Amino acid sequence: MKIDAVEFFYLSMPEILDIGDGSQDLLLVRIVDSTGAIGWGECEAAPLVSIASLVCPKSHSACKAVADSVVSQRIDAVSDISRIGRLVHQNSMDVLQADHTLSGIDIALWDLLGRRLNEPVYKLLGYPHAYPKMPYASLLFGDTPHQTLDDAKKLRAEGFRAIKFGWGPFGHTTPAADYDQLAAAREGLGADGILLVDAGTVWAGDFEAARARLDAVKHFRATWLEEPFRSGELEEYRKLAELSGDVKIAGGEGCHNFSMARHMIDYAGIGYVQIDASRIGGITPAKQVADYARAKGVTFVNHSFQSHLALAASLQPFAGIESDTICEYPVRLKPLAWEATCEHLTPDRNGQIQYPEVPGVGMTPDVVALKKYLLDVEIKVRGEVLYRTPVL
Amino acid sequence: MKIDAVEFFYLSMPEILDIGDGSQDLLLVRIVDSTGAIGWGECEAAPLVSIASLVCPKSHSACKAVADSVVSQRIDAVSDISRIGRLVHQNSMDVLQADHTLSGIDIALWDLLGRRLNEPVYKLLGYPHAYPKMPYASLLFGDTPHQTLDDAKKLRAEGFRAIKFGWGPFGHTTPAADYDQLAAAREGLGADGILLVDAGTVWAGDFEAARARLDAVKHFRATWLEEPFRSGELEEYRKLAELSGDVKIAGGEGCHNFSMARHMIDYAGIGYVQIDASRIGGITPAKQVADYARAKGVTFVNHSFQSHLALAASLQPFAGIESDTICEYPVRLKPLAWEATCEHLTPDRNGQIQYPEVPGVGMTPDVVALKKYLLDVEIKVRGEVLYRTPVL
Repeated sequence: MKIDAVEFFYLSMPEILDIGDGSQDLLLVRIVDSTGAIGWGECEAAPLVSIASLVCPKSHSACKAVADSVVSQRIDAVSDISRIGRLVHQNSMDVLQADHTLSGIDIALWDLLGRRLNEPVYKLLGYPHAYPKMPYASLLFGDTPHQTLDDAKKLRAEGFRAIKFGWGPFGHTTPAADYDQLAAAREGLGADGILLVDAGTVWAGDFEAARARLDAVKHFRATWLEEPFRSGELEEYRKLAELSGDVKIAGGEGCHNFSMARHMIDYAGIGYVQIDASRIGGITPAKQVADYARAKGVTFVNHSFQSHLALAASLQPFAGIESDTICEYPVRLKPLAWEATCEHLTPDRNGQIQYPEVPGVGMTPDVVALKKYLLDVEIKVRGEVLYRTPVL
Repeated sequence: MKIDAVEFFYLSMPEILDIGDGSQDLLLVRIVDSTGAIGWGECEAAPLVSIASLVCPKSHSACKAVADSVVSQRIDAVSDISRIGRLVHQNSMDVLQADHTLSGIDIALWDLLGRRLNEPVYKLLGYPHAYPKMPYASLLFGDTPHQTLDDAKKLRAEGFRAIKFGWGPFGHTTPAADYDQLAAAREGLGADGILLVDAGTVWAGDFEAARARLDAVKHFRATWLEEPFRSGELEEYRKLAELSGDVKIAGGEGCHNFSMARHMIDYAGIGYVQIDASRIGGITPAKQVADYARAKGVTFVNHSFQSHLALAASLQPFAGIESDTICEYPVRLKPLAWEATCEHLTPDRNGQIQYPEVPGVGMTPDVVALKKYLLDVEIKVRGEVLYRTPVL
C-alpha cells in the first residue's frame, strides 16, 4: 500500500488565552493510504508553522517540504514508519520545524497500521501486555495559593491521588510566594498524596533562582521538580539534581529528537524523562527513549497537554513497562481538546488509566464536533496555492 | 528608540536544484526603528516556514509569533538585543522554528545598532581589532572524481590554499568511490594545500559507515572531517574523534542554540566548532559559542553558504580571536546570493579576507537587483491576511 494523502487540520478555540494551557488549539493529522484506510495523528506545535513545513517550496536537497518524504511512500510494515522518519530527517534536515511536523505523521502511520493489522499500537511496538498507569492530574497553578488549594481539594475529591501543578505565577516572583503556592498544593492534596511540581522552564539559564526554591520543594515532599530550565541546559539540570535529595528532577518534554532525550538521561541527572510523542517525532523515537531510559534506570513518563488522541499516543511507548507506573493526565482541558475524540481515557474504579484494547492508537476524532473549531488557512507562493484547509 | 517593523523577504532562484547548495534561496530581514533607521539580516532557513513562525497565531503563553517579542521593543543598547532574544525564547519556546527566525532578526539588530553607533559589529562585540581570516573555498564534491579534480585545480589557480569539498555523491556509495573523490581533491589541491572534507551528515546514526572512510581521510591528510553525523549525535562523534588521529572532527552548523553547540564542545570531541550566525539564533549566541570554544581549546569557524550579508554576519563572532585563522568562504554561489549585496568580501592580495571596517555588519542589500528574485507570499488564517510580501 502507498500513502495517498497527508492532510493537516488547524483547530482552535475562538479565543486563545495568554496562559500555559496547551489545549487551546491543535493540529490534527489524517493520513489516507491507497486502499482508502485512514490513520489519525496530532502534532503538539504551532499549527500554522507546521503546516508551512509540510508544504514549503524546496530550498536545497536537505531542506524540502515534509510531505515530499511521506506522500507516495509504501506503508506495508512497521519498518516503513522508521524508514519514512529517516527520509524526513534527511530531506528536511534544515527545516527546523520538521520534527514537530513528523510527530503527528508518525502517530497517524502507527494508527493506520494498527487499524489495518487489527492490533493496538503497543502490540506493534513489541509489548505483549499494556499495564495500566496511575494518572496524575495535570493542571496550572492557581493565580493565588487559595485557588491552588481549592483545585487540589477538588481533584483529590474526584479521586486523584497524584496532582501536578505547573506554570501560572510559579517562579515568576519571589521564593516566598512560591512557598505559599506549594504549601497550598500540599494542603489541598493531603499528606499522603503525590505532589508534582512543574516550573515550566521559568528559571532558564538561572541556576540560583532554581536553587532558591529547592528547600521549599523538598519541605512539601514533591516527588519531582519538573523543567526548572530549558531542555538541553544539561549542566544546570545536573547541578540542581546533585542538590535535590529525595526530590527527583524531571524534564524532556522539549526534546524534539531521540538524541536530545538521550542527553537529558546521560548528562542532566534527571530521574524522570518526560516525552511527548506529538513533539519528539512521534511514537517511534518516543519508544526508543523508553527503551533507553529503562536501560539507564530512569523512569519514562508521557507528556501530554492536548486531546485524548495525543494522550493515547503518548501512552503507547511505555505501555509494557510495568515499573513505570504513573502517567500525565491533563485535566481542565478546553472544550476543543475534550470534544476532539469520540472516546476518552478516564480513570477506572481503581483510579487507573487502562489502555484502549482496540486497533491503532485507540481514539477516533469526532469530525462533526470538530468542524466548528476548524480554521480556514490558505498559503500562496507565486500565486500558487500550496495549502488550503482540506474538508474534514 | 523602538522597533517599528520586522519585514521578511523570500528570495529565490527561478529553479531550485536538488543539490546541497544553500545559496539557491534566502530569507532577507529588514528591521526599521522609530527614527527610520534600518538594519539588515538573513536567516538560513526554509523561508516560508520562518515567515509562518514570524506571524503565526498564538497557541498558548509559550507558543506565540516571533514578531510579538520584537515589534515595539526598545532598541537603545547592545543589551537590548539579548533581552529581545530571551523574550523570543520565552514566548516562542514551543515554536520549534523560532531559533532560525530569530537568527536573521538578531543579525539585523546588530546591524542597526552598528549603523546608529557608527561602529562595526565586531567592535560592539567587544573586540578592539578584527584579524583577517584565511578563506577556504567551500563547494560541493563533483559528480565524478574528475570534476572534483578540475574544481580543485581551478580554485588553487585562483589563489585558494584551502578547499573544502562536501555533499554531492560523497558517502552515498562505497568507501572506494569516496577514496577516489578524496584522491582527486588532494591531487587538484596539491600536496601543500589544506584539504577539508564535509560529509554533510551522510552517515547519520551509522558509526561503522563513517569509520570505513576514516583511513582514506587520514591518508589524504584532510585537516578535518566535517559532519559525519547529525548535530547532537554526540556519542558517535566522540567515538570517531577517538580514532581520527591527526584528522580533527568538525561540526556544529546544525546547532540552533548555544546549549547544543556547548554539548558538541563538551561531549563530542570536536576540534572545530562551526557556527552559522544565520541559524543558531544570530550573532549573540554565536559570540557566546566563540567565547566558550576559546576557553575549551576548540577552534571556532564560521559556517556560511548564502549571501555575503550572511557571510559577513557569520564572521563577526570570532573577528578578534587571532588564533582562529580560517573561515568558510562559499564559492560558486548562485547569482541570487552573489547579487544580494552591493559589496562583497573578496580575498586580498595575500589571499586573506579582511573585515569590512564600516558600521554594522558591513553589507547593504542590493534591493534593485533583488527585486527579480522576490517571491509573492500570502498567508491567510480565518480570511485575515497575516503575511503578504512587503515592498522591498
